[in-house]
Amino acid sequence: MESLPHCETLLLEKQGPTLFVTINRPDVRNAMSLQMVAELSTVFTQIESDLNIRAVVIRGAGGHFCAGGDIKDMAGARGQRAGEGEADPFYRLNRAFGQMIQQVNESSKVVIAVTEGAVMGGGFGLACVSDVAIAGPTAKFGMPETTLGIIPAQIAPFVVERIGLTQARRLALLGLRIDADEACRLGIVHQAAASDEELKEMLGHAIERVRQCAPVATAETKALLHRVGHEAMNVLLDDAAEKFAEAIRGSEGTEGTMAFMQKRPPAWATEE
Amino acid sequence: MESLPHCETLLLEKQGPTLFVTINRPDVRNAMSLQMVAELSTVFTQIESDLNIRAVVIRGAGGHFCAGGDIKDMAGARGQRAGEGEADPFYRLNRAFGQMIQQVNESSKVVIAVTEGAVMGGGFGLACVSDVAIAGPTAKFGMPETTLGIIPAQIAPFVVERIGLTQARRLALLGLRIDADEACRLGIVHQAAASDEELKEMLGHAIERVRQCAPVATAETKALLHRVGHEAMNVLLDDAAEKFAEAIRGSEGTEGTMAFMQKRPPAWATEE
Amino acid sequence: MESLPHCETLLLEKQGPTLFVTINRPDVRNAMSLQMVAELSTVFTQIESDLNIRAVVIRGAGGHFCAGGDIKDMAGARGQRAGEGEADPFYRLNRAFGQMIQQVNESSKVVIAVTEGAVMGGGFGLACVSDVAIAGPTAKFGMPETTLGIIPAQIAPFVVERIGLTQARRLALLGLRIDADEACRLGIVHQAAASDEELKEMLGHAIERVRQCAPVATAETKALLHRVGHEAMNVLLDDAAEKFAEAIRGSEGTEGTMAFMQKRPPAWATEE
Repeated sequence: MESLPHCETLLLEKQGPTLFVTINRPDVRNAMSLQMVAELSTVFTQIESDLNIRAVVIRGAGGHFCAGGDIKDMAGARGQRAGEGEADPFYRLNRAFGQMIQQVNESSKVVIAVTEGAVMGGGFGLACVSDVAIAGPTAKFGMPETTLGIIPAQIAPFVVERIGLTQARRLALLGLRIDADEACRLGIVHQAAASDEELKEMLGHAIERVRQCAPVATAETKALLHRVGHEAMNVLLDDAAEKFAEAIRGSEGTEGTMAFMQKRPPAWATEE
Repeated sequence: MESLPHCETLLLEKQGPTLFVTINRPDVRNAMSLQMVAELSTVFTQIESDLNIRAVVIRGAGGHFCAGGDIKDMAGARGQRAGEGEADPFYRLNRAFGQMIQQVNESSKVVIAVTEGAVMGGGFGLACVSDVAIAGPTAKFGMPETTLGIIPAQIAPFVVERIGLTQARRLALLGLRIDADEACRLGIVHQAAASDEELKEMLGHAIERVRQCAPVATAETKALLHRVGHEAMNVLLDDAAEKFAEAIRGSEGTEGTMAFMQKRPPAWATEE
Repeated sequence: MESLPHCETLLLEKQGPTLFVTINRPDVRNAMSLQMVAELSTVFTQIESDLNIRAVVIRGAGGHFCAGGDIKDMAGARGQRAGEGEADPFYRLNRAFGQMIQQVNESSKVVIAVTEGAVMGGGFGLACVSDVAIAGPTAKFGMPETTLGIIPAQIAPFVVERIGLTQARRLALLGLRIDADEACRLGIVHQAAASDEELKEMLGHAIERVRQCAPVATAETKALLHRVGHEAMNVLLDDAAEKFAEAIRGSEGTEGTMAFMQKRPPAWATEE
């Protein structure tokens, strides 16, 4: 725990191999401030090579996941002009958010988003880079940017990656707001819970599944998935076969196959 | 209205910021002729920079959207051979259709397809490049080309972009014909109406949503969505952040955020 | 039939234009051995240019499709070390499987997978490269690799191509096992039968549809579909228009359009 950074906008709690990150600005429906972006980025940097953390659960305090960009930060940036040789403050604000989203997307950890209440704008983008997304019964999703005369610049690209161009164009161009069932049908979330009780069960199940899977193999698999479509399939598969050989000869592969033969759980499934 | 081209195969009607384009060859189930391809292309070229038009609704007269390529045009091309240094007339016929489809796909306007009756071959391709597609209860979709010994050359690629390789390969390779509910499940259309009444409501809602969204921001967002997967994410997001800064400092961003603070609709939502 | 290779792990039977390939190691739930990989590859190589075969149906003997990699082959490879200048035996084992998967994916034939019982690991990968996949009521799908400390190296990339990154990351990173209905909802299979009777009907329908479609046009269409997303759309569509002109002027296009005018089935639909 001592290695986790001090955060003002996030609550951090480690339980076994899972880090719970709670966005904690409930008075503004967890609107995403510059500081929150910086803190999320710091947390993911710090845990990246910490093998004691295998899953990260992101959720919001007070019934909302995250309502999007903070209007105050926007107003602050409006007052500023870029200095000599500096980028526009709006550019920096926007791009910093996108960089954090990219980082979460490619984190070596299994990222689980628990989405409730407002999951809008930047909050929607954050949900779209999770490995597992579960929606509670109150969740509402959308990109309202164009109704405000602006564009979902760092969000829409990840929505296209999440659900494909076909559904993304309708959602973004009509500025729609959708509920958990439609979000599940479109693939924004993987599961929609009908009650808080079911939400808790789904989350518990996902965390338990992470425990069953070898940590390094999981990180390697995630990295592999992200490369598909970005390089030639032949190159990717050659490289994957090398990583397969390393994995099966390595300590996890040895332990995993041995545990399988001995009909016992592998060591990583029973760690605290 | 005076700036709209004269068309023989299309009916054009402007209502507020929406242009209604009705394919009007009901005696041949709106089969797509070379002339129709040319007229659709001319219309989209002409309105591209007309800020008074924000949505284009495409539908067919007489209960069918479009039954595909015109057999007469095909027969005409069969009689012709390419002149010196000229491409095969079939090549030109086919490619011209594909170019029109690309143009509609990338139009800066919000393109809404209202699909009823036959949505086959070229008509299927046209539906697949809309931003919002709504199916009426009679709609049937398919690529019958291979059953005729030919290939869905300019259509199948857009079907893959629309619904992914997995579903496209089954539809195209079996020459299947599917109904509105299956088309909705696969993502060819976004909504399937159970009645003409519901179809009308869904269309009205889509048009109303377009009105709520700032026109330039919408066009910028659409252009951004089309770039995803075609360039490096970093480059795309850098560029998007610049466009974000321009948008929020520009007239739409100023009006939109001001209207939000003042709890009134923005100017673009009340224009005639 | 005489041109078909002799196989020890596969049963081959030709019925009309369809080749039935039955994976036949029921005592080990059709686990995929090196020999099976080699035999599948040989079969697909041999039939590639045989116009008498238009569809290939792959299924497993004894109620299971394929339970994944063979543990014995794994154990054998563990004992070996690579010779001078040779690749690791695990690398070769793994990559050979991936090469076979790529070959089946790009086969010019319509590949139909009938999935029942265990469809795991390598079996899951094989199902994911079919043109039409039908699940029986007992089918279970999954990538259990990470629970064994290894990675789904040659499988996960095809799962991403099949169902997209969003669903693939959840399935792979949690090592989940899902049933036929969920597999159908995610697009791993196209249809889920509620009974063996319905499975038989679905298979019969798919085979009948292949018969209605011209063989060369079908192969050209399949090749076209595979190129989408891997080259510039303009280049692809130019090339597709050339192939369209060839097809319509060729023997299939001539027969197909003539049969259509004469209201009779085309020759390829009535061949034995």
